[in-house]
Amino acid sequence: MTIERPIITLLTDFGLEDEYVGVMKGVILSINAQANIVDITHHIARHRIRQAALVLKSSFGFFPEGSIHVVVVDPGVGGIRDIVCLKCRGHFFVAPNNGVLSVVVLENHADQAVSVTNGQFFLEPVSNTFHGRDIFAPVAAHLSMGIDMCRFGRPLSPEKIWKLDVSAPSCSSGDRLEGEIVAVDHFGNLVTNIDMDTFRKLGPGEGGADLVISVAGKQIRGVSRSYDAVPEGAPLAVFGSRNLLEISINQGDARYYFNVGVGQGLTLTRKRRDEPL
Amino acid sequence: MTIERPIITLLTDFGLEDEYVGVMKGVILSINAQANIVDITHHIARHRIRQAALVLKSSFGFFPEGSIHVVVVDPGVGGIRDIVCLKCRGHFFVAPNNGVLSVVVLENHADQAVSVTNGQFFLEPVSNTFHGRDIFAPVAAHLSMGIDMCRFGRPLSPEKIWKLDVSAPSCSSGDRLEGEIVAVDHFGNLVTNIDMDTFRKLGPGEGGADLVISVAGKQIRGVSRSYDAVPEGAPLAVFGSRNLLEISINQGDARYYFNVGVGQGLTLTRKRRDEPL
Amino acid sequence: MTIERPIITLLTDFGLEDEYVGVMKGVILSINAQANIVDITHHIARHRIRQAALVLKSSFGFFPEGSIHVVVVDPGVGGIRDIVCLKCRGHFFVAPNNGVLSVVVLENHADQAVSVTNGQFFLEPVSNTFHGRDIFAPVAAHLSMGIDMCRFGRPLSPEKIWKLDVSAPSCSSGDRLEGEIVAVDHFGNLVTNIDMDTFRKLGPGEGGADLVISVAGKQIRGVSRSYDAVPEGAPLAVFGSRNLLEISINQGDARYYFNVGVGQGLTLTRKRRDEPL
Repeated sequence: MTIERPIITLLTDFGLEDEYVGVMKGVILSINAQANIVDITHHIARHRIRQAALVLKSSFGFFPEGSIHVVVVDPGVGGIRDIVCLKCRGHFFVAPNNGVLSVVVLENHADQAVSVTNGQFFLEPVSNTFHGRDIFAPVAAHLSMGIDMCRFGRPLSPEKIWKLDVSAPSCSSGDRLEGEIVAVDHFGNLVTNIDMDTFRKLGPGEGGADLVISVAGKQIRGVSRSYDAVPEGAPLAVFGSRNLLEISINQGDARYYFNVGVGQGLTLTRKRRDEPL
Repeated sequence: MTIERPIITLLTDFGLEDEYVGVMKGVILSINAQANIVDITHHIARHRIRQAALVLKSSFGFFPEGSIHVVVVDPGVGGIRDIVCLKCRGHFFVAPNNGVLSVVVLENHADQAVSVTNGQFFLEPVSNTFHGRDIFAPVAAHLSMGIDMCRFGRPLSPEKIWKLDVSAPSCSSGDRLEGEIVAVDHFGNLVTNIDMDTFRKLGPGEGGADLVISVAGKQIRGVSRSYDAVPEGAPLAVFGSRNLLEISINQGDARYYFNVGVGQGLTLTRKRRDEPL
Repeated sequence: MTIERPIITLLTDFGLEDEYVGVMKGVILSINAQANIVDITHHIARHRIRQAALVLKSSFGFFPEGSIHVVVVDPGVGGIRDIVCLKCRGHFFVAPNNGVLSVVVLENHADQAVSVTNGQFFLEPVSNTFHGRDIFAPVAAHLSMGIDMCRFGRPLSPEKIWKLDVSAPSCSSGDRLEGEIVAVDHFGNLVTNIDMDTFRKLGPGEGGADLVISVAGKQIRGVSRSYDAVPEGAPLAVFGSRNLLEISINQGDARYYFNVGVGQGLTLTRKRRDEPL
């Protein structure tokens, strides 16, 4: 079976200054000249598995079903960690079994998984330092040719896919929600772990106008609909493109305004009608 | 109508460290698997509309007619600014109506423009923070499928396309031209707003040998044909690839040599035959 | 003859913040809409020909035969240096004749070379500052259309292709090997010029356990099979993906640990059985 222009996405911590990403593309195209290779990002901080897991969660669903997502954030390369091929929601994933697939399998039903061991689909000889080139790329390319994933190795129970502890927001009382900053983007927006469902449990009034959000000793009132709801340079809270609450500055950089980063806590407090904000 | 491998270019200030660019590509390919997506750059300084306008001007004409150019430098995302789809010189543009299309419409006849409002071509639900994903990408993808642009919204008079004040060089006398540095490139070349036509009006002698160019208290004599016309490490003026006068250092970085940036003025003075240079 | 999706790779020092790379792609696609353009890297340090030569050597062979590799690290642009089109091991190269093809021709038999002079295949008018756009891109695009390379200019003897002095490791005695760091990658791995063949001549015992490697006053014992052979944060030597000896830190950055860069020497000493390590 030939698939027309099958999509293979790449998500790595390789950066772009070396030839590593280009070489992976060369290996893929040597096997399947029809592959349509798309970069998600190669700027995951070195070895930051948690960051890669969040980026993968926020991106794969925007590609068509049948897409193959290759994740190479792999500090254990050449060591004892497994490599897995996973099918989930009609998408395929090829990644080290080190937690990068956490959020995918936590939030979705995994249909099928295999532990990738069949050297027949690897580039020979396999180095111990660059499995992206020698294993991940050729396995993804073969998958894109229509090879059944069960040929890559022995079946793996999806429960065996490594899951990171993901920080969840907590409700210490009916009026109070505690969350955490889980990412900071290029624009300096502070992405929190507070999703819309959890937010709604707090029972905020229309537009969250009765909420006070505290970050690093500073307060924001209410949740805005868009950046321009506040003056240029002013802080706001907004549900961003990942459906997570974000703390931003209209046309500015919240990272420097609040002087915070990943891991910083924040609290949302709902005020009663008769309580001063 | 299916178009074979229609080109969609992307020009944004998103950087490459987040998943934003990859997600836009996923959205495009989900709608049109045949799209050939090309990055112009994603490293426009955040919210620098003027820089994006210049980069767009210097790039779109090198693509084949029929190409679709998506520009997402959009500090007003989610606010009241319009989104426009423009046809000009056989190229299509999808961009916020905030000035990024300035130079395109100032220098070319706009054939057709629409204000993009038809949610039928958007990704649902539309966020208020990432129109690149939810509006620009799907509209461009539908355009690449051959959808007539008039279906995206109501016609817009091309005069309604927002134009930035673009600094023009000025001739204070027949012997003197005042210009400005409008960009600094990766190599540290200082790109000025002095184009060849304006330069010729100054009436320089053969090769501009009778000119003195003053930048930040330093002088350059004449206009060179190529970098190696001066010794390594020496400054020169040269008409660069954008047909604009550039100030450069042969195998060096003019940004640090002159210690200047965008906005810095420069003067060209023509010396009379009997006047010492 | 039409070739289906011919591969053109790009290797430059242009960076990604300007429109330069995008414009080259536009020029290529204007000539051959079927071209499949792959970035090797655009982050070669400005004018660092030697670095480009090493990256090219480490990457081109992973692409399918018939691929066209365009290298634009070209401090002499617009000057007297030649532009060459080279065929070697079934691959094509288009590059300035300034040494970037050194390693390719030193390690492989060159089949055919021409000096590229035929303006019929250039973009008109040819600037003196951006041959990437005006010469390299259109020549590569025409080559990808099946144009015979001999039409680009006069034949050139492969001996005329400029070769850089490449530092080779030296054996000062049967027990001692002196090498040099030739590259530092994104992860801070220190790539040396010691290849497996030279290494074997030193006659190390099984796994190199009888070796002491000295870098910047620090010692490493033996050569490891993979990063996790040593504790997290500890230094190791390992044959990396280029088949060259690398000095690394397990999950760390050897650049900062050793405080060294390109050009730094290192020595390998084989200890006799009865000699303390």
